[in-house]
Amino acid sequence: MVKLTYYFVREKIMAKTKTLYFGAGWFNEKQNKAYKEAMDALKLNPTVDLENSYVPLDNQYKGIRVDEHPEYLHDIEWASATYHNDLIGIKSSDIMLGVYLPEEEDVGLGMELGYALSQGKYILLVVPDEDYGKPINLMSWGVCDNVIKMSELKDFDFNRPRFNFYDGAVY
Amino acid sequence: MVKLTYYFVREKIMAKTKTLYFGAGWFNEKQNKAYKEAMDALKLNPTVDLENSYVPLDNQYKGIRVDEHPEYLHDIEWASATYHNDLIGIKSSDIMLGVYLPEEEDVGLGMELGYALSQGKYILLVVPDEDYGKPINLMSWGVCDNVIKMSELKDFDFNRPRFNFYDGAVY
Amino acid sequence: MVKLTYYFVREKIMAKTKTLYFGAGWFNEKQNKAYKEAMDALKLNPTVDLENSYVPLDNQYKGIRVDEHPEYLHDIEWASATYHNDLIGIKSSDIMLGVYLPEEEDVGLGMELGYALSQGKYILLVVPDEDYGKPINLMSWGVCDNVIKMSELKDFDFNRPRFNFYDGAVY
Amino acid sequence: MVKLTYYFVREKIMAKTKTLYFGAGWFNEKQNKAYKEAMDALKLNPTVDLENSYVPLDNQYKGIRVDEHPEYLHDIEWASATYHNDLIGIKSSDIMLGVYLPEEEDVGLGMELGYALSQGKYILLVVPDEDYGKPINLMSWGVCDNVIKMSELKDFDFNRPRFNFYDGAVY
Amino acid sequence: MVKLTYYFVREKIMAKTKTLYFGAGWFNEKQNKAYKEAMDALKLNPTVDLENSYVPLDNQYKGIRVDEHPEYLHDIEWASATYHNDLIGIKSSDIMLGVYLPEEEDVGLGMELGYALSQGKYILLVVPDEDYGKPINLMSWGVCDNVIKMSELKDFDFNRPRFNFYDGAVY
Amino acid sequence: MVKLTYYFVREKIMAKTKTLYFGAGWFNEKQNKAYKEAMDALKLNPTVDLENSYVPLDNQYKGIRVDEHPEYLHDIEWASATYHNDLIGIKSSDIMLGVYLPEEEDVGLGMELGYALSQGKYILLVVPDEDYGKPINLMSWGVCDNVIKMSELKDFDFNRPRFNFYDGAVY
Repeated sequence: MVKLTYYFVREKIMAKTKTLYFGAGWFNEKQNKAYKEAMDALKLNPTVDLENSYVPLDNQYKGIRVDEHPEYLHDIEWASATYHNDLIGIKSSDIMLGVYLPEEEDVGLGMELGYALSQGKYILLVVPDEDYGKPINLMSWGVCDNVIKMSELKDFDFNRPRFNFYDGAVY
Repeated sequence: MVKLTYYFVREKIMAKTKTLYFGAGWFNEKQNKAYKEAMDALKLNPTVDLENSYVPLDNQYKGIRVDEHPEYLHDIEWASATYHNDLIGIKSSDIMLGVYLPEEEDVGLGMELGYALSQGKYILLVVPDEDYGKPINLMSWGVCDNVIKMSELKDFDFNRPRFNFYDGAVY
Repeated sequence: MVKLTYYFVREKIMAKTKTLYFGAGWFNEKQNKAYKEAMDALKLNPTVDLENSYVPLDNQYKGIRVDEHPEYLHDIEWASATYHNDLIGIKSSDIMLGVYLPEEEDVGLGMELGYALSQGKYILLVVPDEDYGKPINLMSWGVCDNVIKMSELKDFDFNRPRFNFYDGAVY
Repeated sequence: MVKLTYYFVREKIMAKTKTLYFGAGWFNEKQNKAYKEAMDALKLNPTVDLENSYVPLDNQYKGIRVDEHPEYLHDIEWASATYHNDLIGIKSSDIMLGVYLPEEEDVGLGMELGYALSQGKYILLVVPDEDYGKPINLMSWGVCDNVIKMSELKDFDFNRPRFNFYDGAVY
Repeated sequence: MVKLTYYFVREKIMAKTKTLYFGAGWFNEKQNKAYKEAMDALKLNPTVDLENSYVPLDNQYKGIRVDEHPEYLHDIEWASATYHNDLIGIKSSDIMLGVYLPEEEDVGLGMELGYALSQGKYILLVVPDEDYGKPINLMSWGVCDNVIKMSELKDFDFNRPRFNFYDGAVY
Repeated sequence: MVKLTYYFVREKIMAKTKTLYFGAGWFNEKQNKAYKEAMDALKLNPTVDLENSYVPLDNQYKGIRVDEHPEYLHDIEWASATYHNDLIGIKSSDIMLGVYLPEEEDVGLGMELGYALSQGKYILLVVPDEDYGKPINLMSWGVCDNVIKMSELKDFDFNRPRFNFYDGAVY
């Protein structure tokens, strides 16, 4: 049993982990489905430190979501703090992850990708298997370092991030 | 008449001009309308050097538009060159202009805004008068330096760019 | 007379000008004196476009100065807009000018110098003749590209900015 | 006892740590007091790797302090190396920490904050409890990501850095 | 004659000009030949402001060239100032020009190209006609925005810089 | 034996490691010798995580080396992917290591050094003992944070990277 403990610990030490910014929308059913699938995959990925990663939905100022509290739509303090917090999420994480739906591209994710580029982050897009190959925007294509399928996310080695082209169309 | 010449020339010298990256979509009727209105306003603006500005639609690789030539949707050379050219358009222009439709936000423009931030460009969003005030994405709200109405564009002083908050909603 | 016009115009064309961010304090008599001297010198400098330069004191949000309106000391909207505007002043000007008093160094100017470095601006410090040579902070010494005397400012060629060491002490 | 070992080790593994740049003055009694308090708090903070953090006072070129060796006040080699080393301290640490005294703001710390912004570091200001709330400079207010009290430093979670506004005045 | 004057002046006003960093070696005959050819072409190019451009050879600290004064090979002050000055030349010019000899690639130019990328400069390589097409280093290939022949330099429009691939080999 | 396990594990935890970009040429015998020596030293260095470091030679697109497959010399896809991958190697590693031969300076390494500067990496040059002191290019001298001998590499503490001048000539 002592030996068992020893090996288990050793394995834990070997498994370096990376933190990431979880760029994903939550505004419709399709987005919510992809959101959940990506999150589940990350929980299984031994190279991810999910506990210290940044999830925008969990970090809105004072815990207020504008979709539930429309009275904050014109609140400069709320907007400014939430925006600033998201930038911190990107700059203080190791990886920029974008859950990307080719038919529902999002301007907010676009800006986050541009910011992540400026902060020197590895940028990975994850596309649901059924959408992989569909045309994506030229700027998203150019800014990212790799595009993988959702089913590949749980095994992606974030300790050895590498380049690859999107195996699909770009418009 | 000599005097006339002199004053005319003097006025030209005074009018310093700025170049800009013209960030605007051309994929549907509403975008095309805003595209044309913005272009018309810039032609009237004495602080803009439109001749040396960068218009993405006029600068696609080898003059090829993928919407007209879908056989280029998988062409890495075309995508790489067009993407790279657009980045040059942003980094070598003085101003980043985004023609912004709150109800048709564009991931490509989002990424361009993020890149423009990293290149230290003044970022101006222009919203059609009839849409001004409608909710815009938080990241677009935070990254821009000012948001004006389309009708204000022809008189905007690009030689004295300043900050202001969007006088509308943010989600 | 025609010829006269011609030469006059030609001279105007030759005189390219640069815009600058006017980094100077206005909180006590000594600062106000240096502020005025530097401003007077810039007006005489033919390589400076003062009209399109950025002067922080003239660009506080809604024209409100907190030293005159202490009720704004806790106003996030005012602080956020004024801060953001100053950053625009730096990133959209050609030159970062710091009016530097060795015995009254200013944390705000320090931060502006660090930001100007990141924006790739030429950083020039101007020290009143009577203070030139006195010890300045190590970080100010390192971040700037040149340090000149106030009396040299009116003749400084901003079209040909070059490096030099501060001819004084650093602590 | 085997089980005990196992749990102890597991806890150690969980406790990821961050390195930081220790931005604090040492030129008068008040500064020295805050310096010591901050250092003591960091020693207690389980999310800090103090051993591999950068403390400017311990890293001056050849171990020479100009306050003790004024003959180095005009030494370009000393100044250049010490300046360069401090920049390395910032860029190669995870966090920029500023021990901030509202009534003794420091130009050197100001520049370091601006540089840390450009390097994408999380910027945390720590203010002695008795000074917390007093007015701070606008540029320090804008550049930082959070401002906490000295008494909160030992428990601050550097693995989950987040945004907050200074709960005090800004001028 | 009045009319003549008018048109002449108008032409001058239209011809906006750009400054550039002249990245070229001067250490052997082949380099000197390309150096001179490039300089001659720039003098003929109406979109170049050569007077306010930066030529490294003309801007070494105190006018001292180490190839003529080997006693400066170990002088930290000379090296530090000359290095710093060259960086200013890049950051304060509009364009990064590299006179590029495929068979005599230069580490110094390589570093300047990398720095120019970080400063958001348009990067143009010019290759002597007789060498155009020969293999160039992968990093030089990737970092530049365009590669032209020496004979094309005098007509290159620096006011409308665009992307193109090198029409040659890369190793 | 339980105690033994405990201490061994503790030691492993203490030894934080850094990843690096291995900038070294492989085009002639001298380069290959230095390449191998540096690699051997890194394997012995307890502060290096070699497994997750980036070695360019092992990361060429599709495993193809142009020196062995000259038919790829004109392949835009190969060049673009390999270039992009190398940039990822730099931006996602902690340290930029350059194996530097004063008499065989390399333009590709030069560009990598400039890029590493922009990404805020600690830049270390390693020179074979027998070449240490020989003149190196001014831009390499200025961009690096330290220059050590090959024999010092195995003991270099990458967890505490510091500045030092090259103890040799610069031209």
